[in-house]
Amino acid sequence: MPTRSTIMDANSYRSGLGDPLDPEDEALLERRERVLGGAYRLFYRRPVHLVSGSGQYVFDAQGTKYLDVYNNVPSIGHAHPAVTRAVTEQLRRINTHTRYLGDEIVDYTEELLATFPAEIDTAMYMCTGSEANDLAVRVAQEYSGGTGIIVTREAYHGTSYLTSGMSPALGSGQPILPFVRLVDPPDRYRVRTPDIGEWFAGQVQAAIDDLATSGVTFAGVLADSIFSSDGVFPDPVGMLRPVVDLVHRNGGIWIADEVQPGFGRTGDSFWGFARHGIVPDLVTIGKPMANGIPASGLLGRAEVMTAFSDKLPYFNTFGGNPVAMAAARAVLHVLQVENLQEHALLVGDSLREELRGLAQVHPCIGDIRGAGQFTGLELVEEPSAGEVGQAKSGLSEAPDPDGTLALDVIEGLRDRHVLTSVAGHSSNVLKLRPPLPFAEGDIDWLVGAIDETLTELGK
Amino acid sequence: MPTRSTIMDANSYRSGLGDPLDPEDEALLERRERVLGGAYRLFYRRPVHLVSGSGQYVFDAQGTKYLDVYNNVPSIGHAHPAVTRAVTEQLRRINTHTRYLGDEIVDYTEELLATFPAEIDTAMYMCTGSEANDLAVRVAQEYSGGTGIIVTREAYHGTSYLTSGMSPALGSGQPILPFVRLVDPPDRYRVRTPDIGEWFAGQVQAAIDDLATSGVTFAGVLADSIFSSDGVFPDPVGMLRPVVDLVHRNGGIWIADEVQPGFGRTGDSFWGFARHGIVPDLVTIGKPMANGIPASGLLGRAEVMTAFSDKLPYFNTFGGNPVAMAAARAVLHVLQVENLQEHALLVGDSLREELRGLAQVHPCIGDIRGAGQFTGLELVEEPSAGEVGQAKSGLSEAPDPDGTLALDVIEGLRDRHVLTSVAGHSSNVLKLRPPLPFAEGDIDWLVGAIDETLTELGK
Repeated sequence: MPTRSTIMDANSYRSGLGDPLDPEDEALLERRERVLGGAYRLFYRRPVHLVSGSGQYVFDAQGTKYLDVYNNVPSIGHAHPAVTRAVTEQLRRINTHTRYLGDEIVDYTEELLATFPAEIDTAMYMCTGSEANDLAVRVAQEYSGGTGIIVTREAYHGTSYLTSGMSPALGSGQPILPFVRLVDPPDRYRVRTPDIGEWFAGQVQAAIDDLATSGVTFAGVLADSIFSSDGVFPDPVGMLRPVVDLVHRNGGIWIADEVQPGFGRTGDSFWGFARHGIVPDLVTIGKPMANGIPASGLLGRAEVMTAFSDKLPYFNTFGGNPVAMAAARAVLHVLQVENLQEHALLVGDSLREELRGLAQVHPCIGDIRGAGQFTGLELVEEPSAGEVGQAKSGLSEAPDPDGTLALDVIEGLRDRHVLTSVAGHSSNVLKLRPPLPFAEGDIDWLVGAIDETLTELGK
Repeated sequence: MPTRSTIMDANSYRSGLGDPLDPEDEALLERRERVLGGAYRLFYRRPVHLVSGSGQYVFDAQGTKYLDVYNNVPSIGHAHPAVTRAVTEQLRRINTHTRYLGDEIVDYTEELLATFPAEIDTAMYMCTGSEANDLAVRVAQEYSGGTGIIVTREAYHGTSYLTSGMSPALGSGQPILPFVRLVDPPDRYRVRTPDIGEWFAGQVQAAIDDLATSGVTFAGVLADSIFSSDGVFPDPVGMLRPVVDLVHRNGGIWIADEVQPGFGRTGDSFWGFARHGIVPDLVTIGKPMANGIPASGLLGRAEVMTAFSDKLPYFNTFGGNPVAMAAARAVLHVLQVENLQEHALLVGDSLREELRGLAQVHPCIGDIRGAGQFTGLELVEEPSAGEVGQAKSGLSEAPDPDGTLALDVIEGLRDRHVLTSVAGHSSNVLKLRPPLPFAEGDIDWLVGAIDETLTELGK
């Protein structure tokens, strides 16, 4: 069955495409394919075999050092000793579930809620972002009395039946559920409009109307606060206010999916939604929460959460377990002690400044955008001059996306020991999302590698 | 909205019902309820505050020792040092995802597959049993071309939208999905029939027929191999053969949910399904897999798994991560080195022998059944003599279930520092499912506590 190339497998190893692996890696790859089957894809034409990491660096089996500009799960840095220590100490004591009283979940939750607006006063825990989004949608449906959910056109919200059914990023083989509607993301590079926030609200209103036409009552919007898989759309600050107001006027719930932008990454604020000055009704958190120990959460206004919990039980065996909570608490403390949010803000701005310089000599760089340590670098065909790195107005079309180039670039970066990947409907946006310790001193390596790669590719 | 009392919240704390807590626990409880909200339930009228554990014992904040006869997640024992060591060492190296080559997932998978029949040759990893069952159902639907799923009447298969929609144990507030049918479990205590296996196959055939009447094509059966939440139905060995044959004749998939019975617990064999001499098409594993580090898996025949993976991408960020794999591998090794499967077989048989003695003096014990360290003790009203602990035939009714008594008993056990809980449609079956190190020397404590409690309750 033909399916379009998806973000999920755009950057995938297929045997025979790249240089041969060394014999040990080749043997490991063969064993892997024998027991894991076809669902498992590897990054890169020539996969990377990682054996250790520290901060923003990882090392392969031959001891080669790589700069990690992709992985947001080890957000405070690979193999951070504070997490190792917290997990080890808790494992030595006990690791059980939330049906017994325990200090760890309460201590963590109080600290976590302190990072949210006062309206967000209740937390629940799961193990993955998929589980958090799955539950969030069910809570939104119970509270609103509707079922209709709106997501963006290249959204990715999870792997469960429900969340994959609202994840068009999984490709055309993945059916979108009948009560789900897609809207274009607030992409001010490609949508020339004076107010992208109002424009986006208009998209959502049209989708609400379309749901109504089908007899589906609107329940809410589930949106990544930085539209990661759509291609990274952070600006302008405040652009989500009109759409959140509109959703509330229509009786719906705004679910902020903070699985990717959360925990200080966007620099200006601890949560991606907070940059836009909005207060969501529900928030889902995940990936970087416990630096790689599986943990996720659903937070929200008590009134909204109660609409679900008064009617239905929910118990997640591993959710909120003391080891996950200890790891998550260590992450919160490291973020504070190492001042990583401010660090993300400063370094992210410096990186984008350098990338803008690069765009002057490589016209295939169509746009550079981001917040903190979350940068999208959009590669395009035949761009016209003067369109780089700033908001535009008017009706002119942006150049066509160049997904083929983007894949060549991430392979070139891999050869230069820089790990990253792609996002966006056309897989043409480099997603630069390093562990937060990524520093000013790493910018030269990354920018130099992009420069060399583009030059080598004749771009 | 009125919902019937469910297993999930039958054994739940509600303030004011039990003796007051000590002031520190009371303060912790208040903080907990303020930040976690109504979805979180605690076991017991007087909740237990656990701070440490070792083997089959746990300790509260006052240093009181409890015998754990409930928790199967810390299956090789609470705070097992082999797991702590494996996790700590891996956390010091790296914890990343499966898009890079890594040794840990391959090493573990080869060892795991060696515990399965040769037909089961492919593995995928997630973080929770819910995620494993959610994916298993989707794989079964892709492979079979149907959607219809059959589960047992008090099944519990997970917390996601899809799996909660096939988990009637969640109570009457939880809608069952329209393509799901319920069948009675193979309960030979209450169903007087000469061949419970053929009887159960007949139930499933009727459900397949009913699906067809509704225009729903049969996809498969999802069944816990020991019917844990239905009330623990392990016998007779081989009883699942007729139904699995029937499912295959009808073009369906047999999904063995091994989240509770797996990893040696049932004693006779490493997997619950293997006791019955069947080979499932898909197997889901979870809870005890990594002794509490969130990890789960879906295993199956390559042909079945490929029907899904050829069409749809699946990537679980934390699934199969090196730390989870290291913990899971440590669990496999400890199970072997400490000979815990055989231990479970021997100790479980001894326990049930002792419980049968107890049934002679407490006629409220209607039935005792189990395999290895998974025992169900069914409490009933006004039983007639001679009905205890053996298979029956004929048409006579078993005594009515006594769920109220069961709840009183688990409270009495808690007061005697023995932790357990209930299962079954009427919440009247004590679920005795300790960490596997539970030993001969612990039987007196457990059986004595049940004896004392029943005597105190005048039963």
